[in-house]
Order: sequence, then C-alpha cells, then structure tokens
Amino acid sequence: MANNSVKDRISSHYKAIRAFTEEIVRPLEIEDFIIQATADVSPPKWHMAHTTWFFERFILKEFKTDYTEFNPHFDYLFNSYYETIGPFHPRHKRGVLTRPTVEEVHTYRKYIDENIFELLEYVDDKTLKEINGLLEIGLQHEQQHQELLLTDIKYNFSQNPLTPVYAASKETPQENTPSLFKEFQGGLVEIGHHGEGFSFDNECPRHKVWLEPYKLATRSVTNGEFLAFMEDGGYEEPKYWLSDGWAAVKKFGWNSPLYWRKKKKEWTQFTLSGEKLLNLDEPVCHVSFYEADAYARWAGKRLPTEQEWEHAAEGIIPKGNFAENHYLHPVSTVLEESGPLFKMYGDVWEWTRSSYSPYPGSKPLEGALGEYNAKFMCNQVVLRGGSCATPSSHIRATYRNFFQPEKRWQFSGIRLAEDWS
Amino acid sequence: MANNSVKDRISSHYKAIRAFTEEIVRPLEIEDFIIQATADVSPPKWHMAHTTWFFERFILKEFKTDYTEFNPHFDYLFNSYYETIGPFHPRHKRGVLTRPTVEEVHTYRKYIDENIFELLEYVDDKTLKEINGLLEIGLQHEQQHQELLLTDIKYNFSQNPLTPVYAASKETPQENTPSLFKEFQGGLVEIGHHGEGFSFDNECPRHKVWLEPYKLATRSVTNGEFLAFMEDGGYEEPKYWLSDGWAAVKKFGWNSPLYWRKKKKEWTQFTLSGEKLLNLDEPVCHVSFYEADAYARWAGKRLPTEQEWEHAAEGIIPKGNFAENHYLHPVSTVLEESGPLFKMYGDVWEWTRSSYSPYPGSKPLEGALGEYNAKFMCNQVVLRGGSCATPSSHIRATYRNFFQPEKRWQFSGIRLAEDWS
Amino acid sequence: MANNSVKDRISSHYKAIRAFTEEIVRPLEIEDFIIQATADVSPPKWHMAHTTWFFERFILKEFKTDYTEFNPHFDYLFNSYYETIGPFHPRHKRGVLTRPTVEEVHTYRKYIDENIFELLEYVDDKTLKEINGLLEIGLQHEQQHQELLLTDIKYNFSQNPLTPVYAASKETPQENTPSLFKEFQGGLVEIGHHGEGFSFDNECPRHKVWLEPYKLATRSVTNGEFLAFMEDGGYEEPKYWLSDGWAAVKKFGWNSPLYWRKKKKEWTQFTLSGEKLLNLDEPVCHVSFYEADAYARWAGKRLPTEQEWEHAAEGIIPKGNFAENHYLHPVSTVLEESGPLFKMYGDVWEWTRSSYSPYPGSKPLEGALGEYNAKFMCNQVVLRGGSCATPSSHIRATYRNFFQPEKRWQFSGIRLAEDWS
Amino acid sequence: MANNSVKDRISSHYKAIRAFTEEIVRPLEIEDFIIQATADVSPPKWHMAHTTWFFERFILKEFKTDYTEFNPHFDYLFNSYYETIGPFHPRHKRGVLTRPTVEEVHTYRKYIDENIFELLEYVDDKTLKEINGLLEIGLQHEQQHQELLLTDIKYNFSQNPLTPVYAASKETPQENTPSLFKEFQGGLVEIGHHGEGFSFDNECPRHKVWLEPYKLATRSVTNGEFLAFMEDGGYEEPKYWLSDGWAAVKKFGWNSPLYWRKKKKEWTQFTLSGEKLLNLDEPVCHVSFYEADAYARWAGKRLPTEQEWEHAAEGIIPKGNFAENHYLHPVSTVLEESGPLFKMYGDVWEWTRSSYSPYPGSKPLEGALGEYNAKFMCNQVVLRGGSCATPSSHIRATYRNFFQPEKRWQFSGIRLAEDWS
Repeated sequence: MANNSVKDRISSHYKAIRAFTEEIVRPLEIEDFIIQATADVSPPKWHMAHTTWFFERFILKEFKTDYTEFNPHFDYLFNSYYETIGPFHPRHKRGVLTRPTVEEVHTYRKYIDENIFELLEYVDDKTLKEINGLLEIGLQHEQQHQELLLTDIKYNFSQNPLTPVYAASKETPQENTPSLFKEFQGGLVEIGHHGEGFSFDNECPRHKVWLEPYKLATRSVTNGEFLAFMEDGGYEEPKYWLSDGWAAVKKFGWNSPLYWRKKKKEWTQFTLSGEKLLNLDEPVCHVSFYEADAYARWAGKRLPTEQEWEHAAEGIIPKGNFAENHYLHPVSTVLEESGPLFKMYGDVWEWTRSSYSPYPGSKPLEGALGEYNAKFMCNQVVLRGGSCATPSSHIRATYRNFFQPEKRWQFSGIRLAEDWS
Repeated sequence: MANNSVKDRISSHYKAIRAFTEEIVRPLEIEDFIIQATADVSPPKWHMAHTTWFFERFILKEFKTDYTEFNPHFDYLFNSYYETIGPFHPRHKRGVLTRPTVEEVHTYRKYIDENIFELLEYVDDKTLKEINGLLEIGLQHEQQHQELLLTDIKYNFSQNPLTPVYAASKETPQENTPSLFKEFQGGLVEIGHHGEGFSFDNECPRHKVWLEPYKLATRSVTNGEFLAFMEDGGYEEPKYWLSDGWAAVKKFGWNSPLYWRKKKKEWTQFTLSGEKLLNLDEPVCHVSFYEADAYARWAGKRLPTEQEWEHAAEGIIPKGNFAENHYLHPVSTVLEESGPLFKMYGDVWEWTRSSYSPYPGSKPLEGALGEYNAKFMCNQVVLRGGSCATPSSHIRATYRNFFQPEKRWQFSGIRLAEDWS
Repeated sequence: MANNSVKDRISSHYKAIRAFTEEIVRPLEIEDFIIQATADVSPPKWHMAHTTWFFERFILKEFKTDYTEFNPHFDYLFNSYYETIGPFHPRHKRGVLTRPTVEEVHTYRKYIDENIFELLEYVDDKTLKEINGLLEIGLQHEQQHQELLLTDIKYNFSQNPLTPVYAASKETPQENTPSLFKEFQGGLVEIGHHGEGFSFDNECPRHKVWLEPYKLATRSVTNGEFLAFMEDGGYEEPKYWLSDGWAAVKKFGWNSPLYWRKKKKEWTQFTLSGEKLLNLDEPVCHVSFYEADAYARWAGKRLPTEQEWEHAAEGIIPKGNFAENHYLHPVSTVLEESGPLFKMYGDVWEWTRSSYSPYPGSKPLEGALGEYNAKFMCNQVVLRGGSCATPSSHIRATYRNFFQPEKRWQFSGIRLAEDWS
Repeated sequence: MANNSVKDRISSHYKAIRAFTEEIVRPLEIEDFIIQATADVSPPKWHMAHTTWFFERFILKEFKTDYTEFNPHFDYLFNSYYETIGPFHPRHKRGVLTRPTVEEVHTYRKYIDENIFELLEYVDDKTLKEINGLLEIGLQHEQQHQELLLTDIKYNFSQNPLTPVYAASKETPQENTPSLFKEFQGGLVEIGHHGEGFSFDNECPRHKVWLEPYKLATRSVTNGEFLAFMEDGGYEEPKYWLSDGWAAVKKFGWNSPLYWRKKKKEWTQFTLSGEKLLNLDEPVCHVSFYEADAYARWAGKRLPTEQEWEHAAEGIIPKGNFAENHYLHPVSTVLEESGPLFKMYGDVWEWTRSSYSPYPGSKPLEGALGEYNAKFMCNQVVLRGGSCATPSSHIRATYRNFFQPEKRWQFSGIRLAEDWS
C-alpha cells in the first residue's frame, strides 16, 4: 500500500520529466530534428532517442524479465560514450542518420515508457529501491539533455541565414541593479553534497577546504559591461588573456560573444526568439571561459573558485529564471529577489576558475555509469548555478557543470570575485 | 499558331523533366531530404531548390516583367557556385539548413513552374527562342541533378548502420559476354559536338585530332575481374599506381571499391536496394580514376583517351541501362544489344585517361553561365557514356562528364584500351 | 667592499650557470644546432640565443646606459612568447633559421656576458639589488632551458634512423627497492614558497590547505611495473583512461612510453646514449599525464595532488640524479639514499593530478615578466621534483613544473598515491 | 683505344656536372645545408646525398662486383620516392636529419665518384654502353637537383627575417622589347623527342598532333604587366580564375607573386641576392599556374598548349639566361637575341595549359626507373623552356617539366598565346 503510493510518486515524477522533453520539441518541424550543425551539438532526434536508450540499457535490460529490445541497432546508434558497453556511432556523425524517423523515435519513447511502467508494477521493494536510484539518474540525465536540446536547437537555428524562431519572445526588463561585492570570511568550510536529495558522484564526498577571505559580485556581468571591455580593445590586447585563450581568439577570430552581430552601428543577438537588438542590462552569455577570464583581468578582478561559489550559495534557495519560465534567455535582475546575491541560480551558468577535478576520497559509480562523470576530469572548467535553459528541479548549490574552456554554445556568463585582504 | 505548338512542345518537355525529379524523391521520408553525409553530396531538398532557383535566376528575373521573387534569401541559399552572381552559402554547409521545409520547397517549385508557364504564354517569338535556349540549359542542368539525387541518396543511406532501402531491387542476369578488343584505325578524325541538338559549351567546337591506331574493350570490367586484381594484391602494390593514387590508397585506407564490404567470407555491396551479395558478372562501379588506372596497369592495358572513346562511340545510338529503367545499378551485358561494343552508354560512367581541358578554339558562354563548365578545367578527369542513374535523354557521344580523380560516389567504372601496333 | 664581494659572488654564479649551457652543447656538431624535429622542441641554437636575449632585453636595455643592441632583429627572432614586448617569430618555425650561424650566437653570448659584467662594475647598491633579482630570474630561466636543451636534443636525435649518440652511457644498477607506501596524516598544512631563497611567482604566496590523510609511494613506478600494465592490455582497455586520454591513445597510436621500441621479442629504449635494452628496474619515464593516470587506475591507486606531494617533500634535501651527474637518464634506486621516500628529487618529474592553477592571493610579476608563468594556468598539469636533466640548484619542494597532459618528451614519470582511511 | 677516349669523355662529363653541384653549394654555411622550410623543398645536404645515392643504387650496386655500400641506412635515407626499391624516409621529414654531417656527405660523394671511375676503368664495351645510359640519366637527374638546390636555397632564405644573401647581384637591364604575337599555321605536326641526344621517357615517342592556327607572344609577361593585373583587382575578381585557383587565392591569401612584398609604397622582391626593388621590365616569376591562367584570361588571351609551345620552339637553339650565367634571376630581354621569339629558353619556365599526360604509345622505363616520370602523370601541369636556374645543357625543345598548379617556388612565368582565326 505504502509501496503503491511510492510507485505512484515515482511514476508521476517519471511522466512529468519525460513529458517536458516532448514539450520542448513541440515547436519543431520534422526537418529540425535531424541536423547537427557542429560536432558539439546533437540532433534533437538523437537526444530523444539517447535519453530513452539510457532507460532501456541500464534498467530494462538489467531488470525486466523477458524484455524484448526495441531495435538491436540502437545500442550502437544511441550509446553516447560508454566505452565499456561497446562500440558506438561516432559523435560527430550523429547528423547523418535520417532513420529511424522522428515518428519511429516517438514510438520508441512510448515503448520504453510502457515497459518501465510494467516493470514498476511488479517489482519487489528491494529491487524497486535499486531501480528508483537508476531511474533518478536517468531522469537527471534526461534533464541535462533537455538543456542541451534548447542550446543545440539554438545553435542549429543560428547557422541558418533565415534565422528561424523557436518560440515567441517575452517582455523583459530594461534596467538592472548596481554591481556590488559581498564579503565572505572563508576559513575551514565544507564543500560537497550531503543529506538526502539526489546528487551525482562528482559532488561527493562532502569534505573540508580552507578558503581565504574573498568577495563575490552580487550579480553577473551585463552585456553593457562586456561591451565596455570590447570597446576598450579587450579582444585585441594579449595581456588580458591566458595563452591558450589568446590562441583561441586568433584561431576562431573572436571579437564578441557568440551570437552577437554588428549591423551597421547596432549590435544584435541571436536568441531562441530570433535576432534581437542587444539589451545592455541583460547578463552577458555565450562567452567562453577564456573570455570570462580575460574580462575579469581587464576589470581588475578574478573569477571565483568553485569552492568560493558553493560556499557563498549555501542556504540560498534555487529560485530564478529556469527553463520552465520560457524566457529561454537571461534577463536583467528581477525586483522580487531579496539579495544581496542576485540570481546565483538560473539565468546563466557562471564560469569558475576551477579545473574539473575529483574531490578528495571520491569514488565513481560502479560499472558503465562510472564513465558518466569521472572520465571527463581533465581539460574542463567548472561552471555553477544553472541557466535559463536548466530545468528548475535540476540544480543545487553543489551541482558541478563542466565544459572545455573554449566552448560558448551554453548559456554561460560571468560572476566576478576578488581577494578580501 | 505554329508558335503555340512550339510553346506546347516546350511546356510538355519542361513538365516531363521537372516531374521526373518529383518521381525520384517520392520514396523519401522528410528526414531524408535534409542531410549531407559528406561535402561531395548535397541534401535532396537542396537539389530540388537549386534546380528551381536556376530557372528563377537565369530566366524569370531576366525576362519576366514584374516578377516577384519567391524569397529574397534564396539567391544566397541556392546559388551553387556562380561567383559572378554574388556570395552563396558554403557548399559543405548545405546540410545545416532545416528551413525552408520540404513542403516550402515543393511550393517554391510550383511557384516557379507557374511563372515559367505564364512567361511562355506571352513572349514573342524572338524572346521565346532565347528563353528556350536557357530553358534547355536549365532542364539539362536539372537532369544532372537527377543523377546526383540518386547518387547522393545512395551515399547518405550508406552511412546509416540501418542500411535503408530506397527502392526494391529488380532481377538481373548472372552471366556476361567475354571481354574482347575492337580495333580502330584512328588517323585524322573529328571530335566534338556538331549539328542541331543540345550540347554544353565544353563539347564545342568540333575539331580535328590525330589518333594512333588503338583497340577498345567490347565491354567494361566486371566485379569478378576487379576481384582478381584485389586478390592479386592490387591495393598493396605501389607499382600499379600513380603517385597521387598510391597516396590516396594510404590516406583513405582503400582496399576495395566504395560500398563493398567483406562479411566473413563473402563480399557484399551496398545498393539503392540495400545491401546485396556481390554479383561477379556485373560491371564494377564506384571506383576512382586512380583505381581504374591501377587496374588497367595491372591488366597490362590502359584507359582510353576521351577522343578514342568518342571516336569509337560515334554512330552508336544511346540505348541502355539508364535512370528510367529503374535498375539503379549496373547490370551484366544484356542480350538484345548487338555489339560489338556493348553498353558504351548507360550502366557506368567510364573513366578516360584525359584531363578535363578546353577544346581548341572553345568559347565559354557569356555571363554567369560561363562558370557552368569552364572554370573546372583543372585537376579533373573526363568520364564518358552515362550511367544507370543518368536520364536517357541526357547523354550523347560528345558528352563530357568530369570529376576529381579520387571521387568514387558516382556510378563510375572501367573500359580498357590498348595501343594497336 | 662588502659590495664588491657581493658583486663577485653574483659574477661567479652567473659565469657558472652560463658555462654549464656551453658544456651541454659541446658534444654537438654544427648541424645539430639547427633543427626542430617537432613544434614542442626548439633548436639548440635558439635556446642559446633566447636565454641570452633574456638578459639583453630585461637587464641591459633597461639598466645599461648607452647600451648598443647586438642585432636589431633579435628582439623578433629570440623573444619566445612575451606578447607585451612585441611580435615574435612563430614558435613552430624556429627550425627554419640557419642564420645567425652557431658561431654568431657564441659571439652574441660573449657580447652580452661582457656587457653584464661591465654593468655590474659600476651600478650602485640599490640598482644592484634590483638587477640581481632579474639576473636570478634570468639564470633560473637559463637552467630551465638547460633541461630543455637535453630533452630537445634527445627528441631530435630520436627522429634520425641513424640514432646518434649524444654522450657515452654510464653504468647503472640493475635492481631496485620494493615499492611501499608511506602514510601522511594531512590536516591543515601550509603550501608554497617562504623564506629567503629564490622562487617563481607561481610558488607564492604560502597558504593554508586542508589535506585528508593519504599515502605516498616510497619510489616511482619502474619500467618493469609499467610493462605489466602494457601486458595486461593497458593500452587497449578504455576503462583505465580519461576520455581525453583514450582519444590521445587512438590519435597518436600509443602502445608504449615514448622512445620504447619492440625489436623482435625485446624492448629497447632510445636514450641520450643511443638505443639500449630496456632496464626493468629503472623508473619509467617519457609517459604523458594520461598514461600516468591510466597506470594508477589500473594499479588501483591514484596520482598525488601537488599539495600532497609538496607536504611529503617538505624537509627533504634535494639530492639525487640531476643533470650534473651525467647519467642523463633515470636510474634505479641507489643504495646510499636513506628513505623512506626515495628520490623525490631528480630522476623523473612526477605527474600530479593537479591542474596548474593560481594560488590564492597570488600576484604575477609586473610587466612582461608577468607572462612568464601566469598565462599558462589552463589546460596544464603540475609535475614536481625535477629530473635527471634538471640542474641540481634549480629544484626545491615548492617548485611547480607544468606541461599539457599529452606531452611525453620530458623525463616524466609516475609516483602513486592513495587515500588513507 | 677508341673505347678509352669514350671513357674519357664520359668521365669528364661526369666530373663537370658533379663539380657544378659543389660549386652551387660553395657559398653556404654548414647551417644552411640542414633545413627544409616547407615540405616542397629539400635540404641542400639531402640533394647532394640523394643524387649520389642515385649512382650508387642504380649503377654501382647493379654493375660493380664486390661493391661495398657506403652506409646501409642510406637506401632508406636518400631514396626519394622509388616505392619498388623499398621504404624510404618521409619527404616532409628530410629536415630533421642532422646526421650524416655535411662533411660526411662530401665524403660519400667522393667515395661514389671514385667507385664510378673504378667501374668505368674495367667494364667491357657492351656494359659500358648500358652504364653510360644510366650515367646520363643520373647526370640529368643531378642537373634537375642543381636547379632545385637553387630554388630551395632561395625559399629557405626567404623565410628568415634576416634575408640572407646567397650571391651578390649582377647588373641587369631596365628596359624591354614590346610584346608582340607571332603567328603559326599549325596543321598536322610532329611532337616529341627524336634523334640521337638524351631525352627522358616522357618526351617519347615522337608523334603526330593536329594544331589549329595560333599565335604566341614574342616574350614573356613582365613584372610591370603583372602589376597592372594586380592593380586592376586581379586577385579580387573570381571571374578571372579557375575554380581551384580561386580556392587557392583564398586559402593561401595570395595577393602578389611569391617573394613580392609591399614596403610602404614600393614593391620589393626577394632574390638569391637578397631583397631588391622590383624591376618592372623583368619577366614576372614565381607565379602558379592558377595565376598565369588568371592573368591570361584578364589579358583576353590564353596560355599555349605544350604542343603549340614545342612546335614554335623547334629549331631555336637553346641559348639564354641559365644557371651558369650566375644572374640567378630572370632579366629583361637582352639585345643580342635575334627574335622574333625572345628567350623561349632560360629566364623562366613557362606554364602551358596542358595537363601532364602520357604521349600516345609511350613506354615508361623498365624497373624502378619507370617511376621516374610516369607515375606523376596526374594533377600536374607542363612547363617548358627552362629557367635562369636550369643548367644550360639540360634543356631542349621537347623537355617537359611539370608541377602541381599551385606551386610557386620555381622560376615559373607566363608566355601568352591566342587563337589565330
């Protein structure tokens, strides 16, 4: 009885998250599901099938007696990077697959959902607990791909001279709060996940770190502030840049954030609602770690470490501009927030100065899921706080996102820090 | 009145050829229209729009009073390579365009067709003649893209581990005629287009060339014969290969024609009807010039020059295995042909040893259409005779096809020649 | 008077270090000075000129009245990477410069030395202090290039099928101590440079860090131990590798450390004394961070953090197998050392698991010298302890070396660590 | 007796040509012998050893009883591209070999010379004839490398900001003859080598070709004329360019011939005598086929075919500005020449519009020497007439030089042609 209500809760949680994926792709034409405009992004169809395969591979094939696999090729086609499971379709070639069709992928999703529900029906309490742990990973995983769906659709659309619109834009404010710095004493503090809620293996274990006194900006850097950096020659002056960052400026020809375009005298920005005039009071986004770091050096500040960020965020409830708000773009500081730290969550992922590394005493998950996070702990930089494309239930103070320092297609922005001495 | 019957003939010719394009894409799913699995191929949607744009740009915009262009971006999106017309979308990025949708492209095709018919209605005789010349180029151009549609769909499908089927296969014979050599005296002969029918500017002017006596194989090389080359170490022995050919073998890891795959002990071949066991009596196809040339050297023969080929083909009526036959694959020598030269037309394009060069006294067309052929006269090799994917009305003895020597995705095969002395 | 003895001490220090550079290049033929067999290495001639330019640019041009520059092109030719000084010759093209000749570079070195001595003669005490600080940086810099001279000569020679010998080999032991683990309690400890001696800006400031209890291997991993990893399929099994590491294995075709070669059934190793049979008891060297990390995972251990390494090394006097010993290759644990930690210094640089990052509160040097270290703090991994190619006076517990994780041409090896809990 | 005088003649011919190689490298420093500033060029040391190896491999090892090879690695190191002989050092890595030293290469040359003389001493008449044929190929081969030595030294030096001087410049005239066109009737003519003198296999057999009436420019295009093309936007206007040529313009950023540089308002040109002001009356050189072809189209002319060139050159004695003249640069038309065709030989190689293809009935040499010419008959364009870096005894009307259409480091220029109708 109690068990049934647990199963019901699990089922509705599963349904709700799976349904949000369908909601995200609803505005798309069939054609939009197929392409991969650069190797970093994946076709929407692939995201839909891959997240589904995750449940099939790690739950149904392991736990459901007599489970009949949907299509024997899908292990090859929709495995993303789990080397220990077997060979997989090369990442940069996801855009050559016209089949299965979009309709077949919808059928696949339904087939897996039904099998998951059937499985939930009959499992005993002990297995249910185990399955629930895996379901939770699968759903958190699907939420990560919900964010990727939005950022990848944006990138794909941006490459089309017709500048397609994914969703109509909403009104957003045109002013902002001033940028101040809040002081933190630091000392011997604790970092990392604790308590009951879900976390990934890379957030554990909770452990001590020593922090020197520091200050953190009360809000993130705006388009207007970043424009001042540009107009002061920020992109032409090597002294602001890390060596690899300066090499990236020259290699990619960067002279503004991704999606900015100068039309005569005005800057525009490509958004999920099409091309718009740049709002100077919005948080700057789609900057690389290199640009964030160079901006900070130009401003006489620095980026925070991930430990400083997490310590400052502790106790703040994750409210803010998330995927469900349907802005799908960062907005300037909204008035109802209390401060003094505005929008640590939502709006833009905030680059830290921390390389993505294992926590002391950390243990990756057993088996193939051990590849989920641990094997990427090299050449990546940590971002914190979630963005306007992150599902609201997917973020927390200890959450560690990570990307290579030159990547710009995520909603990534800048919050400054400085030593306090 | 006479004029009207001319207009009717032009109209039905136009309708018939445009309709064949629609027929070719009928088996496709919407998803199949979008992708470009390698830079050499174009998405089916792009072929459909580009061929249509050709009529819009070179006829409607030039001749139709008050013509309203369908979409101002299409000049950028669907210009292929006409530098003198203006900037165009990069060739290797044709697969990132999900919009216009397939339906919009169909609408575009109808819009242009209707405008063409309207234009034909009212033009005077003199303009009609000029338009008719351009229409003929436009329709020949569309026929070239009909062949590319088939070869590009084949390539796209071949990259999918699900090996999709474009069309069901037809029964084909399992035996062949013996390979013999027919002798030609040569001497001072004439080469190039003459007479009334359509020709491209690269086939003109007709001119004298001196040919030494030579022999030409009565049919093209079969899969079985090519397999003997392979089994004799053809792909491992540099002495058979041109220097650039040997570099290509190593760079691309070639060890068989494109689309062949060894499964346990048997060779299969990917076709527009899916993957099939290799038929040893079919003409070998999807070989590069380098492979054709190496095979010939291994066999103690050589490839013919394009002049030898044309001289031999003169007077033979272009019958054979063309796109309308719906084999969509070369077939072994069919019995009804009289010989002694079998299937000079259709089946497979035959690599010559001739670089693609201007004929003496040649004059490219005026204006942007001068870019159609002339600017490619470097680093390309001439092929002759048409293939199973060529529309039957698109081929003639003087027709010069050309590709870079390493290309393999066309239905390209081998007919041997040798000196006769 | 006191001043004169200070000046004398400075002078002899300068002479001794400059002379060691000359000693290193003595065995070379003129031809050997010119080449750059890969972009990572520099021609010996370039190292000799660049280290000299450093004194000219940062001392003579700044402090010596009426100093006449040796050659106005040398600012362009021999600036390595100081963007704020001006444009410089591209790094990967250092091997195209046959002029200045080797003899001219020797003349350049003498010219600069004489000017330095002249300058020292007449400066007042205050300026002397400032100059001495810069001289010390210049000499530490020259010592870094002394190590690079040796590793670059080794790489250049290794690319020649004639396997040239740089110096005759010395006898080395064929046995080793067992590998044990020493325990460290950790806690709140201090890291970073303090006290009087020289340090680079990247070693400062000394600061607190919290360390969990850990164990550190008493010696580094041997060739024999690494061979066991190889024979157990270490290079074929993705589960041991970081994602980028596995990509590197496939990209570069790694199946052993750099300079190893299998000849029939025996492994050989290219050394500065030519090609030799592999000594299983020597420390493994010329492995990348990826290989070090994969080995540790295979062994069920991990690499130490740089803080763990430094904390363990504190108080150990830097004795060991350095460049002056003329082994020019790591040797198995020598008996005279007391333990329990053997050869923390010398022999091989030890990869840590720490990304190269700024210390809390760190301040790069002012001006162009601020580019010396700080701008490389991204995509690099810290190594500790010095190698058999490091000058003995160039190393200390707080010294931070750093390279990209895929680099293998330095004498880089592996010391294991594990959690102690 | 007669035999002895034949042997003497062979010997002195051999000595003279070998000595000219030594003369060419005399101005070099040891450092200059080692580098390869781009994959197209080879280090001077390599040229000296490779030409020597040619005699060792094809004559001494085949004919000299008990011949002791100089160094068993040299077959690997100094084989250029003869695949049928065995594996060889990669072409683009010739610049990583500091050993053998330059002195050792001189010793190698002497050793081979002495062995050749010994061999000549005792061979019988029949073998002498065979050896003499191979010696002649070897000496012609060495002459080709004499030209390459000069062009490669020039390229290497041009990459050094110090702009080294190879040889002092000589006075050259500052005016030129007007450019006119001489008419040729064409018809059925003969092309290809005949008679007694030496020729390569690619010049044979002599054969008939039909030529339409044509005109050939009386001199080659000058710097001043080419500058007019540049100033008329030649490098910015795609309509003048072949498709691959236009791609090359964009890929390489071409906006002038190789070695030209604009300093403030004046154009300079790097030469073997250092950097000099551009002489507008000199023939333009260091242009690619693409630039030659684009210039011709801009000028309303075309390039000649190789048959037209050869037919026009027939009967003209090869006098002119060759390597022995020590100008080492093309010079404006000198007065003593009779005309009407000026300097068909020497000065600059003249690009034709002909792809490098086998002549009808041609037979490559047997064995490895069959690779000398035949395997390059793809993707290359024929040049005719020799240059200021060609040894005077190395050129003739039938001589076919060939390079890829984008190459510019040879002394390659432009002679225009046009149809005469």
